Amino acid sequence: MLHRFAENPIIKTSNLKPLHADFRILGVFNPAAFIFNKKICLLLRVAEQPIPKAGKCRIPFIDHSSGEAKMSFFELNSNDKDLDLSDVRKYNYCGRDYLSSLSHFRLASSSDGKIFEIDSKPWLLPDGENENFGIEDARVTQIESTYYINYSAVSDDGYVTSLIKTKNFKSLKRLGIIFHPLNKDVAIFPEKIGGKYFALHRPDSMPFAKPAIWISSSPDLVHWGNHHVLLRPGQNDWNKLKIGGGPPPIKTEAGWLVIYHGVKQPAADSSEFYSLSAMLLDLENPQKILSNLSPILIPETDYETNAFVKNVVFSNGAIIHPQTQELMVYYGAGDESIGVAAIPLKEILNQLT
Amino acid sequence: MLHRFAENPIIKTSNLKPLHADFRILGVFNPAAFIFNKKICLLLRVAEQPIPKAGKCRIPFIDHSSGEAKMSFFELNSNDKDLDLSDVRKYNYCGRDYLSSLSHFRLASSSDGKIFEIDSKPWLLPDGENENFGIEDARVTQIESTYYINYSAVSDDGYVTSLIKTKNFKSLKRLGIIFHPLNKDVAIFPEKIGGKYFALHRPDSMPFAKPAIWISSSPDLVHWGNHHVLLRPGQNDWNKLKIGGGPPPIKTEAGWLVIYHGVKQPAADSSEFYSLSAMLLDLENPQKILSNLSPILIPETDYETNAFVKNVVFSNGAIIHPQTQELMVYYGAGDESIGVAAIPLKEILNQLT
Repeated sequence: MLHRFAENPIIKTSNLKPLHADFRILGVFNPAAFIFNKKICLLLRVAEQPIPKAGKCRIPFIDHSSGEAKMSFFELNSNDKDLDLSDVRKYNYCGRDYLSSLSHFRLASSSDGKIFEIDSKPWLLPDGENENFGIEDARVTQIESTYYINYSAVSDDGYVTSLIKTKNFKSLKRLGIIFHPLNKDVAIFPEKIGGKYFALHRPDSMPFAKPAIWISSSPDLVHWGNHHVLLRPGQNDWNKLKIGGGPPPIKTEAGWLVIYHGVKQPAADSSEFYSLSAMLLDLENPQKILSNLSPILIPETDYETNAFVKNVVFSNGAIIHPQTQELMVYYGAGDESIGVAAIPLKEILNQLT
Repeated sequence: MLHRFAENPIIKTSNLKPLHADFRILGVFNPAAFIFNKKICLLLRVAEQPIPKAGKCRIPFIDHSSGEAKMSFFELNSNDKDLDLSDVRKYNYCGRDYLSSLSHFRLASSSDGKIFEIDSKPWLLPDGENENFGIEDARVTQIESTYYINYSAVSDDGYVTSLIKTKNFKSLKRLGIIFHPLNKDVAIFPEKIGGKYFALHRPDSMPFAKPAIWISSSPDLVHWGNHHVLLRPGQNDWNKLKIGGGPPPIKTEAGWLVIYHGVKQPAADSSEFYSLSAMLLDLENPQKILSNLSPILIPETDYETNAFVKNVVFSNGAIIHPQTQELMVYYGAGDESIGVAAIPLKEILNQLT
């Protein structure tokens, strides 16, 4: 099990101001984690929500109708019989899904990995028709001196995974949609293996299959193929309903260290539980699972169990601390705030081998 | 509108014998069409179904438990309350989808494009864990002297698109899964455009979006990226519910000729209607639609309206007849038999331009 920091949550909604009038900060969570300029950096997902109004359901979107992107929302009556409000994260109206909040990315940096300074301005805003419901859950993979950032782009065409690259976090280049709908939880390996790049991803296969972790290869990080199932859900109760990749895999002497999330099959009277697990993949053949350790973090504290979404720990960012050699797992707590939990790298590798 | 051949259906279930004891031929439909050795060839989808038994629902699958692949089925009580039999093509049990038949591919060839000789043996059988619910709806794209065959591979991991290649239709090479779940209706362009291969495909984006046609590029036909929406459903009633790519695009002087299918939003008291439409894409930029013609074929005859699935015309194979310069559209009628409908190429281009 990972050990939580006593100062958790290290970043919370009160640390931020909303960008848009008529909106409030709903959550700051699910950060990417990476080391840049000798600092530990996070790319935060900041979710904004239209300020609630009694009797109304307000659905945010980026409005392009005027020719420029404007944060907006449309309004439905809460008691509309075609409206399903049972999931606080997304609303279903007339059989179609819409998100209850709209996210962008904010940069934060730290010298010790615990106390972060948050940029007052967004680092990346949703852009174009594929992102009119927002951008979510960045993963940052450093390959040599370039940082590749993949994230979920959500729109009324579905959710996809897009990729951008930067060397300095000032200018960036967009590389387009790398995984078509419906796909999220993409975790890119930080170097080529046998001449090809690899990534974990999580296509939605319902109603054929419960969501599983797939692995694919690419010659150039843009075009992906050679898709294989790596791990299906169901190893234990914590991973029974679905699983998906977490932070970019970390190279260790024992294998590729992968942290992933699992979702418990909810009982009729309970909500879903999101927990974290770990596995080791073969260094030369990442399609081969060497060992599995599940779970390594389960929702227990008040900020995880009693938050915007109850009972969630979810990670898409982890680093090895340069000074302490600890595995530092940054995670979204309850889709609302950010915690960090750690374990000496040697210790988790011992448990995995 | 296309003109049906008077001899339709040109291939039907009575032309074939089942491969497996305890199974019957449910349909021979949705053929790929191509020219090989100066003959017009079809790659037929042959669907076999366990012979029905009163009170039972029999779900076919390839059983690998003995170490070798064996055609098998499992049996449920038809009145099981967790079983939904409302769609004849697939059964839903406990929220998961299963197919009601299991398909393989059979080769057929013809000198005139009307009278076909059908091989008595399968050309391709389902292989491995990604195909344990069968293989469906082949498309054959000839690129120089190589034939690339993509098809839907269906399993309890969902449906994906796989690719194989051959030069002689005797030996073949498997190139793996090229589009992850859930994706079908992949139509590969027959040459590079601006240095890259292109394909149309149809990811499932529900409940976010109605199924639309996407376009993507590849350096090598195996790895795909740069995904864009090409056309969303909704241009007219025939294409309101969903659309998807048909045969591989055909190069003409006016642009890439694309035939695609559309599905009508069913009224409460009717079934879905599958029809065919056509569009032209810019020769140098296939992401640009030049014109659209919809519909070009709608279900009208008895073998289309009153078949295993009612009211379906669906095409994944079309050629330009070498002698007559007619566009010959081979199509599945009612998921049961094969028809052909034609129009002089000049005439459909006139209508499109």
